Amino acid sequence: MEDNFVPFRGIKNDLKGRLMCFKQDWTSGLRAGFRILAPTTYIFFASAIPVISFGEQLERSTVTLADGSITAVQTLASTALCGIMHSIIGGQPLLILGVAEPTVLMYTFMYNFAKDRPELGPKLFLAWTAWVCVWTAILLFLLAVLGACSFINRFTRVAGELFGLLIAMLFMQQAIKGLVFEFRVPERENANLPEFQPSWRFANGMFALVLSFGLLLTALKSRKARSWRYGSGLLRGFIADYGVPLMVLIWTAVSYIPGNNVPSGIPRRLFSPNPWSPGAYGNWTVIKDMLQVPVLHIIGAFIPATMVAVLYYFDHSVASQLSQQKEFNLRKPSAYHYDLLLLGFMVIICGLLGIPPANGVIPQSPMHTKSLATLKHQLLRNRLVAKARKCMTENGNLAEVYEGMQEAYQQMQSPLIHQEPSSLGLKELKVSSRIGNRDDPVDETMFDVEKEIDDLLPVEVKEQRLSNLLQSAMVGGCVAAMPLLKMIPTSVLWGYFGFMAIESLPGNQFWERILLLFTAPSRRYKVIEECHAVFIETVPFKTVAFFTIFQSIYLLICFGITWVPIAGVLFPLMIMLLVPVRQYLLPRFFKGAHLQELDAAEYEEAPPLSSCSMARQENEGSFADDGEILDGMMTRSRGEIRRMCSSKVTSCNATPARDSISVQSPRLSNKVYSPRVSEIKGESPSLGRGGSFGSRTAEARRSNLSKTHSFN
Amino acid sequence: MEDNFVPFRGIKNDLKGRLMCFKQDWTSGLRAGFRILAPTTYIFFASAIPVISFGEQLERSTVTLADGSITAVQTLASTALCGIMHSIIGGQPLLILGVAEPTVLMYTFMYNFAKDRPELGPKLFLAWTAWVCVWTAILLFLLAVLGACSFINRFTRVAGELFGLLIAMLFMQQAIKGLVFEFRVPERENANLPEFQPSWRFANGMFALVLSFGLLLTALKSRKARSWRYGSGLLRGFIADYGVPLMVLIWTAVSYIPGNNVPSGIPRRLFSPNPWSPGAYGNWTVIKDMLQVPVLHIIGAFIPATMVAVLYYFDHSVASQLSQQKEFNLRKPSAYHYDLLLLGFMVIICGLLGIPPANGVIPQSPMHTKSLATLKHQLLRNRLVAKARKCMTENGNLAEVYEGMQEAYQQMQSPLIHQEPSSLGLKELKVSSRIGNRDDPVDETMFDVEKEIDDLLPVEVKEQRLSNLLQSAMVGGCVAAMPLLKMIPTSVLWGYFGFMAIESLPGNQFWERILLLFTAPSRRYKVIEECHAVFIETVPFKTVAFFTIFQSIYLLICFGITWVPIAGVLFPLMIMLLVPVRQYLLPRFFKGAHLQELDAAEYEEAPPLSSCSMARQENEGSFADDGEILDGMMTRSRGEIRRMCSSKVTSCNATPARDSISVQSPRLSNKVYSPRVSEIKGESPSLGRGGSFGSRTAEARRSNLSKTHSFN
Repeated sequence: MEDNFVPFRGIKNDLKGRLMCFKQDWTSGLRAGFRILAPTTYIFFASAIPVISFGEQLERSTVTLADGSITAVQTLASTALCGIMHSIIGGQPLLILGVAEPTVLMYTFMYNFAKDRPELGPKLFLAWTAWVCVWTAILLFLLAVLGACSFINRFTRVAGELFGLLIAMLFMQQAIKGLVFEFRVPERENANLPEFQPSWRFANGMFALVLSFGLLLTALKSRKARSWRYGSGLLRGFIADYGVPLMVLIWTAVSYIPGNNVPSGIPRRLFSPNPWSPGAYGNWTVIKDMLQVPVLHIIGAFIPATMVAVLYYFDHSVASQLSQQKEFNLRKPSAYHYDLLLLGFMVIICGLLGIPPANGVIPQSPMHTKSLATLKHQLLRNRLVAKARKCMTENGNLAEVYEGMQEAYQQMQSPLIHQEPSSLGLKELKVSSRIGNRDDPVDETMFDVEKEIDDLLPVEVKEQRLSNLLQSAMVGGCVAAMPLLKMIPTSVLWGYFGFMAIESLPGNQFWERILLLFTAPSRRYKVIEECHAVFIETVPFKTVAFFTIFQSIYLLICFGITWVPIAGVLFPLMIMLLVPVRQYLLPRFFKGAHLQELDAAEYEEAPPLSSCSMARQENEGSFADDGEILDGMMTRSRGEIRRMCSSKVTSCNATPARDSISVQSPRLSNKVYSPRVSEIKGESPSLGRGGSFGSRTAEARRSNLSKTHSFN
Repeated sequence: MEDNFVPFRGIKNDLKGRLMCFKQDWTSGLRAGFRILAPTTYIFFASAIPVISFGEQLERSTVTLADGSITAVQTLASTALCGIMHSIIGGQPLLILGVAEPTVLMYTFMYNFAKDRPELGPKLFLAWTAWVCVWTAILLFLLAVLGACSFINRFTRVAGELFGLLIAMLFMQQAIKGLVFEFRVPERENANLPEFQPSWRFANGMFALVLSFGLLLTALKSRKARSWRYGSGLLRGFIADYGVPLMVLIWTAVSYIPGNNVPSGIPRRLFSPNPWSPGAYGNWTVIKDMLQVPVLHIIGAFIPATMVAVLYYFDHSVASQLSQQKEFNLRKPSAYHYDLLLLGFMVIICGLLGIPPANGVIPQSPMHTKSLATLKHQLLRNRLVAKARKCMTENGNLAEVYEGMQEAYQQMQSPLIHQEPSSLGLKELKVSSRIGNRDDPVDETMFDVEKEIDDLLPVEVKEQRLSNLLQSAMVGGCVAAMPLLKMIPTSVLWGYFGFMAIESLPGNQFWERILLLFTAPSRRYKVIEECHAVFIETVPFKTVAFFTIFQSIYLLICFGITWVPIAGVLFPLMIMLLVPVRQYLLPRFFKGAHLQELDAAEYEEAPPLSSCSMARQENEGSFADDGEILDGMMTRSRGEIRRMCSSKVTSCNATPARDSISVQSPRLSNKVYSPRVSEIKGESPSLGRGGSFGSRTAEARRSNLSKTHSFN
């Protein structure tokens, strides 16, 4: 794929692809109306709260900074600035930018280096970091122009999910650390204050436990409000959409209940200067000090710059990749190269302003995509529910209702100009025992319209730029709202960190495999039902277990490295190392077909014919030809067809119908729905329908291929 | 029913019935082996913890008592003594005895009366209560001999469930009160101690919140361990069986984590004297002071005695009734009259020993039955799982596996000598889509044996005396283990109170109807599926709502009365009042058929023929004869048959098949299974099978009738 290398081609392709849907990015966002506020506020909180916390962390680390300190004001400003830029002229608008933990670690390291050199010192620290940013940007430009992002497809699911879990662990670690510190005297504080007496410290710690666990548990519950049994649909929807911000508000209010019975410092709250307090805006003029930095240090800045560049390249691309996973069925193209180029520009701007740069963040970016999938789902559902209700009042039978919905669904699809009309359709309506026959008239007591439609809808994402723009603007608004933000107790923050860690887990196959190790053998089939984990049926459990244990050990090593004082910032290199490990080491221990199931690498999807025929032989034992496959389908009485051929086989088979033979779990939850897992009912397996699904799968592969091409 | 009244007949019938199964009560308990420990420890904790707490409450109320005080030692001793007596020679061994809240209220009231009379004073208080106990016992003897318990069947579901919910509210109130008091200085304590400084009080309160919510949430989670997905079946079973005591241990251990960082009084722990400390055993010799009580007061003791007698009569009988609800499918007869007689003896003994008497308690008694149902379920299941696995390894098909299980099930049934062989059988095996055809060989990856068998088993209870005896003995052991019990923090106690309140709710139809009021209309069908709430289909929602709101207001009035300082002890009278309200007032507002559904009163089940034919006419509008009923069954395509005739009609119809026509929810959870709700699959409604179910229902009715007869 990288044989005919042309510089700039990746950027050009990205720009071409995204420009085509640029207008639609805005109109589609605007058409969602006020509902866009649900994902916006959700991501705003997920974005702003860690940024504030990281800002405080930076402030603590750079406390001796003479003037122009780095505080939450600076991290918020950077996040807002980069976020607004990216949402307007960026490539992939699903990507969320923010000042992340690695940046904080990097800046802390650089500060510790600079403060001890008399020629730099705290005074010239920001000027020196401006040089680091300049070098970093140059390196990022080079990487973008030379098409380094085509390398991103080497980061397979294994690497991405390991990184995702690592970030979740770091968030959880921060939550636990934060809670433990609530019992201690903060370093810089006067230990003689009443609130730091042993009794009040203990009280503060216990209060923090109550607040953080309160937030964590209620926030987790509220996200599931849509499936609650109680309350009207409107209320449930509101709680599911805005529950997390609401809970932050509620628990902040709860923290004021003790009132005057406790000293003012209990519970501890966010501590950040107001942006208008003296000294808080000294860094904006850092550019005038840049030439005062000794030449040796200007050149030496190249060394940390390489590390930052590697880090940003990896972080930005993987965040983007995780927000564009196959499961989301995205329609619009990716823009890895162009986004990296833009990141370079943003790094320079931030450097010259003396603020730490922002880059693509995990888990916020995939959270953003997921919340937009929920939004799209709701928009589709509302239309479909209205249609179904209308059909039902006209006493239509089930088949008519379904047809009506199918039609409404197609109307909602506004295909992009450069794409063929979407062949994605509603899923097959399963006639459950409760509903009755297809030809019976349906009534609402038996047919829960909303629930049924949830099952019918495939995963789709409302891809637009508005939510990202709005959330960035709101982060910017936080700078002005600092006095309000300061009311939030730090313990609520730790609860929120825990919430983010837990929210990022579902859908992570690595995590699901870890859970599988602890699942009782007789209940493993449930994992198939609920997570669509095809590999459970196709890969022997021992192999899955071995693979997962290997991955877990690797994860623990990565996590351990983050604890090493300075070398810790190199932990992305460990994940980089996964690329050769995956490509050269793992195939020695695992069968190709199994690896394919557990970690479908795109670069392995179009193998040469020889290995394909080999794979074919491997599978011959079970089903020799199409006839037997159909037989196999017939013998299972209802809906249960195992995934008989792996995608390796199907990719060298011309019949599209073969593509569609896959497993379907009896009860489909409305979580992640992979396009490869399409539905065939065993009761009436028809090649005709299989064909239509096949074309859909083929289309999915085509779009994957086009993505792959755009890397070059 | 009360026309031919004969004294002693009720007692005689009870004795006859229970003597017949007396031996089986012991052998059956012993045959369960060590597994009997699961319900035993579960009930032991549920019994001992409130008794300890009530003991502390009594101690606080009778603080000026000169010698021979009433503390947790006395309440525990009374509970153990009465419990052991009742479990050995009592009638219904499912009934759990304990010193309950009403007794505590009564004793507090009597103490407040006595301490201000110079002729009695704290010194003669216990002697005077001994006289009260003597009078109470005489009244109880009279009630038992005169067959007052036949009146118990006037306490319909409405009264019992209202009382159950009231007790749950009182427990929850105690939990909340207890938590609030953790923030305050205890009355009798020296407020100058370090642990009562504002900071430590606040810290103690917050710690209490953490401990009590920790216990509550983990205990609730652990009860559901059996359906967890993770861990081996053995571990899950162990957690489900012993999770609650385990959690009390764990959270007690957690309370020691702060160690020396906090004053010794934080968190607050149980406070009770050791039984061997001086003055703690003064009451055992109260009998020698009895004649020192002035004659006027001996006679005057009759007045509180009437109140106590009414209270005990009601409390004891309703606790017994709630532990013998129809849903439990009990096989052995009740013994209301005899148990009341025995209670009289126990009241005298306790009175003469100077300890407060114990009586039947809610919610522990129904909790006991439920835990024994779980035990029986496990015993049956283990046998059936083994059988099914054996069949499966022999490559049997589904029908064979089912037959094998059916056979094993019948072997496990040891019919009592005086009963006809049980016609209870396994429920119909529903071929779910996952399992495959009846004739396919089944393998364990697809067929979760344990889960499927859970669905097949009807509710049955391991009726025996061993668990009650053991738990009473363990309560007795608590007296010696007082130094250990004192390690439990009071906050864990409050969490446990909350847990008991919540545990008593499921299965309470009143509670389920309250929830129904808040359920979104489109999700109401779920209530049918999960709670087998037949009334949702047969009674208009408005009627259900009106009925529930009436009941809720009544409940709130009862709850309000408990707050009235002295008249509060009369709250059982309010519930007594429900009898005429239910019998004469409610039928004016609600249709008979609807009342029957919401609150099946036994005394309305065998009405004279005239009213029956009237009821028949009422129903004629919908279905005139058997033919139409079958038609009605056919029109529903699958599994959905409404309960077409109320039991009022069926009771005057000779065809047993009519009895069995009832609704079956598509997915049966293994919760409460009413014998009236039997299963008919719409796909093949056969009178033959209906007949077998009919005979089972008829048998259930017969046993009900025999119960009714034994009241006279």
